[in-house]
Amino acid sequence: MAHYSVIGRRTPRTDAPEIVTGEAKYTVDIVLPGMLRGRILRSPLPHARIAAIHAEKAGAVRGVLAVITGADTLKQKYGYRASNYDEYGLAVGKVRYVGEQVAAVAAVDEDAAEEALSLIEVEYEELPAVFSPEEAMREGAPVIHDEAPNNVSYAPRFHWGNVEEGFAASDCVREDTFVTQAQIHCSMEPHAAVAEFAGGRLTLWSTTQGPYALRKDLALTIGLAEGNIRVIKPRMGGGFGGKREMFASDFCAALLAMKTGRPVKIVYSRTEEFIASRQRHPMVITIRTGYAKDGTLRAKDCTVIADGGAYNSRGPGILSYAGASLASLYRIPHVRYAGYHVYTNNPVGGAFRGYGSLQVRFADESQMDLIAEELGMDPLDVRLKNVVESGDTTASGKKITSCGIKECLLKVAEESGWHQKRRKKQYGRGIGIACNDYVSALRSLYEYDSSSALVRPNEDGTVDFFTGASDIGQGSDTTLAQIVAEELGVLLEKINVVAADTRMGVMDLGSYASRVTFVAGNAAKKAAADARQQLFQHLARRWSVPQEKISCREGAISVRGRDDLFLSFAEAIAQLLRKEGVFVVGRGYYDAPSEMVDYRTGYGNSSPAYSYGAQVAEVEVDMKTGQVKVLQVVAASDCGRAINPMALEGQAEGAIVCGLGMALAEDRLSEGGRTMNPTFLEYKVPTSGEAPVIRSYPIETIDPEGPFGAKGVCEGFQVPTAPAVANALFDATGIRFTELPITSEVVWRALKSRKGGGDAS
Amino acid sequence: MAHYSVIGRRTPRTDAPEIVTGEAKYTVDIVLPGMLRGRILRSPLPHARIAAIHAEKAGAVRGVLAVITGADTLKQKYGYRASNYDEYGLAVGKVRYVGEQVAAVAAVDEDAAEEALSLIEVEYEELPAVFSPEEAMREGAPVIHDEAPNNVSYAPRFHWGNVEEGFAASDCVREDTFVTQAQIHCSMEPHAAVAEFAGGRLTLWSTTQGPYALRKDLALTIGLAEGNIRVIKPRMGGGFGGKREMFASDFCAALLAMKTGRPVKIVYSRTEEFIASRQRHPMVITIRTGYAKDGTLRAKDCTVIADGGAYNSRGPGILSYAGASLASLYRIPHVRYAGYHVYTNNPVGGAFRGYGSLQVRFADESQMDLIAEELGMDPLDVRLKNVVESGDTTASGKKITSCGIKECLLKVAEESGWHQKRRKKQYGRGIGIACNDYVSALRSLYEYDSSSALVRPNEDGTVDFFTGASDIGQGSDTTLAQIVAEELGVLLEKINVVAADTRMGVMDLGSYASRVTFVAGNAAKKAAADARQQLFQHLARRWSVPQEKISCREGAISVRGRDDLFLSFAEAIAQLLRKEGVFVVGRGYYDAPSEMVDYRTGYGNSSPAYSYGAQVAEVEVDMKTGQVKVLQVVAASDCGRAINPMALEGQAEGAIVCGLGMALAEDRLSEGGRTMNPTFLEYKVPTSGEAPVIRSYPIETIDPEGPFGAKGVCEGFQVPTAPAVANALFDATGIRFTELPITSEVVWRALKSRKGGGDAS
Repeated sequence: MAHYSVIGRRTPRTDAPEIVTGEAKYTVDIVLPGMLRGRILRSPLPHARIAAIHAEKAGAVRGVLAVITGADTLKQKYGYRASNYDEYGLAVGKVRYVGEQVAAVAAVDEDAAEEALSLIEVEYEELPAVFSPEEAMREGAPVIHDEAPNNVSYAPRFHWGNVEEGFAASDCVREDTFVTQAQIHCSMEPHAAVAEFAGGRLTLWSTTQGPYALRKDLALTIGLAEGNIRVIKPRMGGGFGGKREMFASDFCAALLAMKTGRPVKIVYSRTEEFIASRQRHPMVITIRTGYAKDGTLRAKDCTVIADGGAYNSRGPGILSYAGASLASLYRIPHVRYAGYHVYTNNPVGGAFRGYGSLQVRFADESQMDLIAEELGMDPLDVRLKNVVESGDTTASGKKITSCGIKECLLKVAEESGWHQKRRKKQYGRGIGIACNDYVSALRSLYEYDSSSALVRPNEDGTVDFFTGASDIGQGSDTTLAQIVAEELGVLLEKINVVAADTRMGVMDLGSYASRVTFVAGNAAKKAAADARQQLFQHLARRWSVPQEKISCREGAISVRGRDDLFLSFAEAIAQLLRKEGVFVVGRGYYDAPSEMVDYRTGYGNSSPAYSYGAQVAEVEVDMKTGQVKVLQVVAASDCGRAINPMALEGQAEGAIVCGLGMALAEDRLSEGGRTMNPTFLEYKVPTSGEAPVIRSYPIETIDPEGPFGAKGVCEGFQVPTAPAVANALFDATGIRFTELPITSEVVWRALKSRKGGGDAS
Repeated sequence: MAHYSVIGRRTPRTDAPEIVTGEAKYTVDIVLPGMLRGRILRSPLPHARIAAIHAEKAGAVRGVLAVITGADTLKQKYGYRASNYDEYGLAVGKVRYVGEQVAAVAAVDEDAAEEALSLIEVEYEELPAVFSPEEAMREGAPVIHDEAPNNVSYAPRFHWGNVEEGFAASDCVREDTFVTQAQIHCSMEPHAAVAEFAGGRLTLWSTTQGPYALRKDLALTIGLAEGNIRVIKPRMGGGFGGKREMFASDFCAALLAMKTGRPVKIVYSRTEEFIASRQRHPMVITIRTGYAKDGTLRAKDCTVIADGGAYNSRGPGILSYAGASLASLYRIPHVRYAGYHVYTNNPVGGAFRGYGSLQVRFADESQMDLIAEELGMDPLDVRLKNVVESGDTTASGKKITSCGIKECLLKVAEESGWHQKRRKKQYGRGIGIACNDYVSALRSLYEYDSSSALVRPNEDGTVDFFTGASDIGQGSDTTLAQIVAEELGVLLEKINVVAADTRMGVMDLGSYASRVTFVAGNAAKKAAADARQQLFQHLARRWSVPQEKISCREGAISVRGRDDLFLSFAEAIAQLLRKEGVFVVGRGYYDAPSEMVDYRTGYGNSSPAYSYGAQVAEVEVDMKTGQVKVLQVVAASDCGRAINPMALEGQAEGAIVCGLGMALAEDRLSEGGRTMNPTFLEYKVPTSGEAPVIRSYPIETIDPEGPFGAKGVCEGFQVPTAPAVANALFDATGIRFTELPITSEVVWRALKSRKGGGDAS
């Protein structure tokens, strides 16, 4: 095994000093000369026809330079695939949820903009609204989009194998239904954009997970060529899936800049974040599973009804991936899936760490415990018996290469003291386990799954590294820089990362599907190798030695067996340019060797590799009040290779705490489509005070395709947390909670209402 | 001859709409959040020791965040070659001219900064000063730099052939002395810089002709690694050589940003432009020339004494190039040259369009007319007899490849009606001719002479083109974009130029020595060819046709002999990425195949090609007042190929008008080292009202090495103007003016004092 000098070490993020000192520039920090502030008027009604908008008074406010409505736009819809386009940059004709963007103003300051907003008169004709997918699917329900008369906008149907045969061959069959809630991303940084329009070209600084995708949405809806739009992602304070698409901030800033000829900045308020960004799709998940007496899974039939809210957003992809994830973690030959993406007059569901897989896995991992309970087996053993192995091809066409799920399960069992603690409850203590798989990229929407990079060593030994990839707060700039430093053989501090700008000679599809380390990492590695190869080729010629004998490590070049030949990397680059007239710039392009998922069948090896994880949660329940305290979460992650163990721990901690929020507390509450808790005072996310002890362990399976063997880890970490907690609560209380969030009130009521009354008083 | 679709057409600058509408962003337009304004305190004395600086009161001014002096710096000198380093970012120990930077402040606004400047107390101990190079060279003169006790900082001595033999073989020998003045660049945009320091890295926006060179100077004097400095050149309003180096605006903005942690902007006032930037070196040029009775030149011995002002700046290079230019235009086997770069307490001489060659050519082209007069020959014929030809190697080692000097001379003679008009003077009308050669790059300071580019076609057919080259107002971005568009086969409007940013994966040594079209043009062409080759290679495979049969023109790809195969460029790029997973980015690096000039001997083929030009000026002199009116200048330029004939005309017009200013009006006037005319009211540059009819003609010799055959043209255009005017004045008045500028007063005095009195009264 090779010995590495940069990767594999606990490495603080290279941008950490900037961030903690406040030097780092986020989109909100961008100020341009003559810049205006934009604000957005939002619908107060969940469903209404827009009869007229009177903007004259608003336009007359001193300091207001432009007021725009849907009438000022191209009225071009956008969204996921062209067949799913259903949303406008500004509402046209109708509003479909409380918070939808109806108009926008640009003014010299926020006060003038706010005053103008208050003077825009919108004549609404209110329409009947519907807020639950079940009601929305009923005959006679209000029709939200004419194109979907039954309000079902997308309904994937997958069937791999033959479930009827599978059930027939099963000893037992059980069906359970689970319910998940609306979770809000709660990025610390709100949605923000600054647009500048000059010389027929638009520049947009935006807090986005995908500058290239945003450029595409903008081009479509604004009517400029993609190449005449430049999207730049500044430093970012979180995305979690909530910044995957074009938002009204992007669209309105761009349009207002084009209208006024001046730069325009729009920053969402925290309330707008809650009511008008995206949320995790609430789902009702019914799983029917057939299995043998020894715990072997035979067949699975699953229905998912998702509350899509008023628009598709990434819903179709999420409903597809929810189905796909039924067949990828456990060996199971027969799987059927029916998904329903249902329009309601609620805020819009969108991408969120876990992307549909998370909800289904909550259901499936809860049911695995129910099955274990029924069979009198240890939940760990039921899992170990069924998990996929390296070499498998799943019923859904996934080709399993590196696979450490068994090691993950065994690791968390060992580290948590699983066998000692299970079923030893006293005073409401319990322990639960759950596991997951995840993609390291997902080829579903595009026929390609690519990233590219450039590596330009400077003559002083520093290295400019250009990547299309977007660090959205997860620290990928550092991880990618480590890969470049390792591959080139220089110190990490020498790497200058220049990232996420669509006019930079590189590309990347975005930070989603846990793809950055894998896809952008491979591109970065190739670019670095290309630069090194150019350098070594010339050195080999100059020194008359075979190129393969040359190596570089921590900035020192040496030749195997030739102690007389050595040179610093900096000096070598400088000499190459200055003496030999060779300018080194390495380029690397990587297209993941995966398959386009057939969206009609859900079949296909959609990712170049699969990561795995397992978690054990330990909980303590106050049997009088129902209050749940999570004491510890032990996590193991088959990350392929831990490029940066510290970043891996950070991902584990962030994702697990977010998973605990989902398990126990977070929920968008609404009444008549209005969000009733749109502030951090009322919508409770876990703070450091609620965070348990988190211990996370990398399982390094060294993937054959990943950069230095690495796989994606970001999203997977959040997937097993909620079911592990639910399973621990069952261990602690004997009560099976099938609905999220499991708040203290829920626990208290359950304790109170169960036979015998328990301790709850 | 190939037929081109983009190059060779009169093409308005692609950025012209932005510029004329005011949308274009210059350095002065950059505003950053929290940005401070910096101002510089300048020496009121021409030569003084700085005993102490008291900055306490200045620092206490409300709104002032920092005051810096030489004591706050690394005290690291910088300049041309390391052996010529003599200047500080802020004066250390001494000031050597009126206007030298002594301290700088950063404050929240200009008013606070100005108030602080007025409160800085500098204790000077005045030293004796010297203002003429002749006096400075005398024994006992004040010593300005300890390292140069005789005030001669650089004294090149070249001798090619054997002048004594040459003079012995001559029929006639004559010696003349010429004097040139201090000309100021007068860029419409003053020197300006904005610095930002964050995360240990410095970003500097600066109006500079060479971001890479500026980065080097900054790294040296500020103490950061070059790779941790990013220099960006925004849109620029002129350079003309005056923005070749680091200025106090750059250095002080950087240091103040580092001190305060906030961005700092410094913009020079027009007065600072006049007293504290750079100026064209005043020179006293004595040429002794031996020649045969038929006009054949035999030998030349030349001495140049240049007033270098207080520091070297580019003086050593200019003195070398002044000498080199003695042997490159005319065939002359024996040349000797002695140059003196002399320190005085005047403002600093630096690079200026023509770079020393201009002054020497004024002398030499004037003397050519004196020789013609003496021999009774037509000045045109003397020139035609002696000019170099393709295939020559000059005494100084220049290898002449493409050469259109004869065609240039014949063209201007024909177009001006030379033979009809010469010696036909009435009422003081006259006609004069002069010619020039010029480099298309100059390998003198660096061992390489390089540029690189990247070309990234977008999937909509637009093309992002990255070049290190700096458009300083001459329109090179358009010229380079034309080259890329032609080579790729797309429309010019599809090219997005991204230029002159040191953190962009490309490099370029700067806009000087008329090198941009040649060097950066070749790099751009190679990058475009590389991108096209990647595209065609895949199409050839897909279509099973030989790659060489594929071509692209104006965005349409076709295959020779296969009418069934065609595709738009945009679609081809999109399909390549989306269907075949191929990301196209072309890279091009060009290192001019020239030789490093040996600075001790001046010998070497320093440029990859030489351009040529000739001009005929027609003047009318008011014999009563001495007022000179230039009626017309006819110019021909061997540009190799006119990539953009309109830009060529623009270069001709700008340079010729600047040459007329030098010939007739411009002069920095000083008293005791103080500039007495530091405003446009007193320092007269020609306006459109003074501009003559200018007709310029390209002579296309299609250079074998230049991109599409093009050579550099920028500087050469200014070289023959002043001697052509002086020669025309001789034709008009019979008076030989050997000193510039030839103001109306000078003409009037000469007319008045000559024998017979003439018309001057």
